[in-house]
Amino acid sequence: MESTSIQNGQVLVFSQHRTTALTINENEERLWEDIRVYLKKLAPPENRYLHNDLHHPDVPPDEPINAHSHLMAITLSTSEVIPVVEGRLGWGRWPSLLLLELDGPRSRRVLVQVSGESIGDPQIGTCGNLAGSPVERGERVRAGHFSHNS
Amino acid sequence: MESTSIQNGQVLVFSQHRTTALTINENEERLWEDIRVYLKKLAPPENRYLHNDLHHPDVPPDEPINAHSHLMAITLSTSEVIPVVEGRLGWGRWPSLLLLELDGPRSRRVLVQVSGESIGDPQIGTCGNLAGSPVERGERVRAGHFSHNS
Amino acid sequence: MESTSIQNGQVLVFSQHRTTALTINENEERLWEDIRVYLKKLAPPENRYLHNDLHHPDVPPDEPINAHSHLMAITLSTSEVIPVVEGRLGWGRWPSLLLLELDGPRSRRVLVQVSGESIGDPQIGTCGNLAGSPVERGERVRAGHFSHNS
Repeated sequence: MESTSIQNGQVLVFSQHRTTALTINENEERLWEDIRVYLKKLAPPENRYLHNDLHHPDVPPDEPINAHSHLMAITLSTSEVIPVVEGRLGWGRWPSLLLLELDGPRSRRVLVQVSGESIGDPQIGTCGNLAGSPVERGERVRAGHFSHNS
Repeated sequence: MESTSIQNGQVLVFSQHRTTALTINENEERLWEDIRVYLKKLAPPENRYLHNDLHHPDVPPDEPINAHSHLMAITLSTSEVIPVVEGRLGWGRWPSLLLLELDGPRSRRVLVQVSGESIGDPQIGTCGNLAGSPVERGERVRAGHFSHNS
Repeated sequence: MESTSIQNGQVLVFSQHRTTALTINENEERLWEDIRVYLKKLAPPENRYLHNDLHHPDVPPDEPINAHSHLMAITLSTSEVIPVVEGRLGWGRWPSLLLLELDGPRSRRVLVQVSGESIGDPQIGTCGNLAGSPVERGERVRAGHFSHNS
């Protein structure tokens, strides 16, 4: 946000993957672990899923066993929108955009798109790519975050 | 997307119903069934819900027994936003926009709104209606999808 | 929406809190209770969560026991987008924007941002703040709603 002159508008953050999720919440170490436990309770990786039948003839050769990851992803969100108000992100207290890696570690791409009006001049579609955050220690649910101290 | 000149912007897809859901994920036949099983585990249709008490005086005459459908809908999403980057949908690999019918089959309407800048010229609010996808075989969780092969 | 001249565009509604949620659904008294029961089944407040260990040295002095509230919040959504089509909200039948208080009662702030084109003239980033709805009777999951009769 330092590099854009948008005064009022929005930041769209969009994950280009089907087994990640974005969510806006508090970036708290132990809450991350609570989220991990919660999602594994909702969609246990050890359950049987039809999508995990890799003997099916249509399955691509690099298909992982990840039905639970898809289910976790649809429960959360592929994208988040953050309002920009008077040049600042208007998302309140304890804001962090969390990127959840649900089937990694893998290299991931998140698209960030800023739109709105700069001073007196409408601008739309300023786009950029943000490299996926590094994933540590083989955690399945946990990848990184984008923090903002307003 | 063939009929718009938007180069950078967004496509908002919004379901005009409270017992459907939109989600961006992989359009894979057996994953659809996994999603169906998953949602029925989260909000079992056979459970007792207050919203299903159709003897209540305020209930409209055409009200179906569908509390579980509302609960599934709020767990997923009413809308999805897809970024447009250099004239293409920037949503990555295995992209499909899935429309989940949670209380059908019924005729459904999904609103598609494209906004952004065409070549050198800002455009906002190009709107269109997309007829709801046909529902087959009385499936409750499954309606159709919008695919894009980039 | 009475006070804006936007003809085609969008309304972004964004909660500035991490233990509330927004969702578009039917504003029906008994469905609210069904949602409350549903969310408490997904993330039982009485479960043990690491985030609730308030003896940790990093915990701020005003931190409540609310891990379940965070989990409910990420299951639903921090924001909703509603399309504006020809000067009206294009969100269909039984539309209400529900604000769920998951850790109250507290004073809450919801940001409403309208963008789009007025008659012949693009406008972006018309912003406003809406005071959080009052919370009654100490309900944890239930705060208020914004209704629209189209």
